[in-house]
Amino acid sequence: MKFTQERLFSFCIQVFETCGMSKEDAKLAAEVLVLADLRGIDSHGVARLSGYVRLANKGRANFNAKPFIVHQTPSTATLDANQGLGLISAPMAMHIAIEKAKNVGTGWVAIKNSNHFGIAAYHAMMALPHDMIGISMTNASPLVAPTHAKERMLGTNPICLAFPSGNEIPFVVDMATSNAANGKLEIAQRLNKQVPLGWVQTKEGKESTNANELKDGGALLPLGGHKGYGLAAAVDILSAVLSGANYGPWVPPFVAFLDPLPNLPGEGIGHFVGAMRVDAFRPKEDFKAHMDNWIKRFKAAERIDDNTEVLIPGELEHRAYLQRIADGIELNPQVQIDLEALAAQLKLVL
Amino acid sequence: MKFTQERLFSFCIQVFETCGMSKEDAKLAAEVLVLADLRGIDSHGVARLSGYVRLANKGRANFNAKPFIVHQTPSTATLDANQGLGLISAPMAMHIAIEKAKNVGTGWVAIKNSNHFGIAAYHAMMALPHDMIGISMTNASPLVAPTHAKERMLGTNPICLAFPSGNEIPFVVDMATSNAANGKLEIAQRLNKQVPLGWVQTKEGKESTNANELKDGGALLPLGGHKGYGLAAAVDILSAVLSGANYGPWVPPFVAFLDPLPNLPGEGIGHFVGAMRVDAFRPKEDFKAHMDNWIKRFKAAERIDDNTEVLIPGELEHRAYLQRIADGIELNPQVQIDLEALAAQLKLVL
Repeated sequence: MKFTQERLFSFCIQVFETCGMSKEDAKLAAEVLVLADLRGIDSHGVARLSGYVRLANKGRANFNAKPFIVHQTPSTATLDANQGLGLISAPMAMHIAIEKAKNVGTGWVAIKNSNHFGIAAYHAMMALPHDMIGISMTNASPLVAPTHAKERMLGTNPICLAFPSGNEIPFVVDMATSNAANGKLEIAQRLNKQVPLGWVQTKEGKESTNANELKDGGALLPLGGHKGYGLAAAVDILSAVLSGANYGPWVPPFVAFLDPLPNLPGEGIGHFVGAMRVDAFRPKEDFKAHMDNWIKRFKAAERIDDNTEVLIPGELEHRAYLQRIADGIELNPQVQIDLEALAAQLKLVL
Repeated sequence: MKFTQERLFSFCIQVFETCGMSKEDAKLAAEVLVLADLRGIDSHGVARLSGYVRLANKGRANFNAKPFIVHQTPSTATLDANQGLGLISAPMAMHIAIEKAKNVGTGWVAIKNSNHFGIAAYHAMMALPHDMIGISMTNASPLVAPTHAKERMLGTNPICLAFPSGNEIPFVVDMATSNAANGKLEIAQRLNKQVPLGWVQTKEGKESTNANELKDGGALLPLGGHKGYGLAAAVDILSAVLSGANYGPWVPPFVAFLDPLPNLPGEGIGHFVGAMRVDAFRPKEDFKAHMDNWIKRFKAAERIDDNTEVLIPGELEHRAYLQRIADGIELNPQVQIDLEALAAQLKLVL
């Protein structure tokens, strides 16, 4: 069944407000979630809604959080998310970064004491209308094993970079630093399909194509081996060691049924965002003209297969967005059942 | 045969000075090159020396270059490398970034009209003694095919992030955004060995384990597939579209026997560097204590094989450094022959 974005948006707002969030914050959180569904990143959209509510009910996420700046310089700030959702604190951090970039060329904000921030692209793309380059990243619950380890030490720690263009679509790379995101693994589990070598390892650290390895105590593997481990680790450090959040194996689990470890070294999970004014480096018209040229040249790269085009990062998501704005959003049946149960529980209508 | 670092350093200085470089620039360029050999990145050290000289002789690299700032804001600058080596302009850009970070928390410098900058780690690690996080990246001659393309459109575009620690070694991730660096492929060629699937494709875009594919018109493949393509592309854009250098397939070849394409969209190759003051986010003692904790926890991760330790990014390079400072640097025989020929040509002694 298909839902209009307005209907999902309105439902998310009602859920958040019913659970005690202010109207303004509820609208923002709903916007971040629905953008994920519009861009085709179904694992990070309304599918997560009931998870946020369970975190709040458990007292682990504060829907009344008022994030506050704990330290700043002209180009940096550290934000305490006040145990709220990253859906709220990350856009707030981007606003701060954008204001700093207006003043001194760039702005960088590290966020601690936060929870899940939805899709990284929402935050990075906030920079685009300001003719700025946007950057966002977050750490996440440990699922990924470092090279030569069998222990889960890192999250899928995504990183997003968004670049404005002129007439072409913006270039938006938004990627987990593991070979496969957990969502893709879940899809393979549901379909009872094997996964490619390199996605997971067994709990003994052996290669595997079994989509259930993660449930059985195995781990996800970092992108392309040890380089992905280094990249995921850098995201962890920028997001958490720099901000004062928890890092590595101490990042609290997203699922409410798992408790955080004792003796945590930091507060909540961490994010890191940035904005760079294009015209702090060169005239923005020049930058945009060359971005358009870059995109057109890469689209024209000689194809391996005439029928398979070369894509620009963010192009598939942009197409999904246009199509779903027009045609609506088809929810996975299990997600729909989950949202209907949430609606019933809160005496709302999906 | 083993060489002391002093001997290689002194030889590099003599070569650069003989070819018209100032003493000060020659010392800096030599330091960048020899650090690569000390850290075990043999492909980026003195092995490149004769290549720089050939670029200068061809008029493509200017050993008398005086880089200059073309635009700046309190946290950013764009540097014109004046067609000099990145070995000179990238450290200069890092100095500028570090000064800006002292003033406003962070500093970011895009560099155009440059040439090869050696190992990325030299530049990023300049931030460490200042208790700053260092970042460096560069684009490079096209060898890597975007996903679904058979055409070489991107360089191995490395990225480095260096984080200061307290008592532990610094965390330094320095990685090409391709699955394999070109240097590793050359080693396999010399030994006539096959390479793992995923390193290269044929000129028709088919999977291959033949180390000679690149010579035969094939291409290197991006790290972990389409994500590595996105990452390499982001490095290309930050290094060149932002600075005004050449990007994508237009990046001039490092080797002097290949001419740049006609109608270039920019000037030379491009780099991007940054420095972030740790205490622009949190007290530096706290950051360093948690970095040490991060490193110790990851070193203690449960191993797959008891005899194979979990490494911290930069740990192998740090060990190579200590060992080679003590024991000297063993040059590859072909590199030694190449340097002896260069010495003879310039009437110097290796």
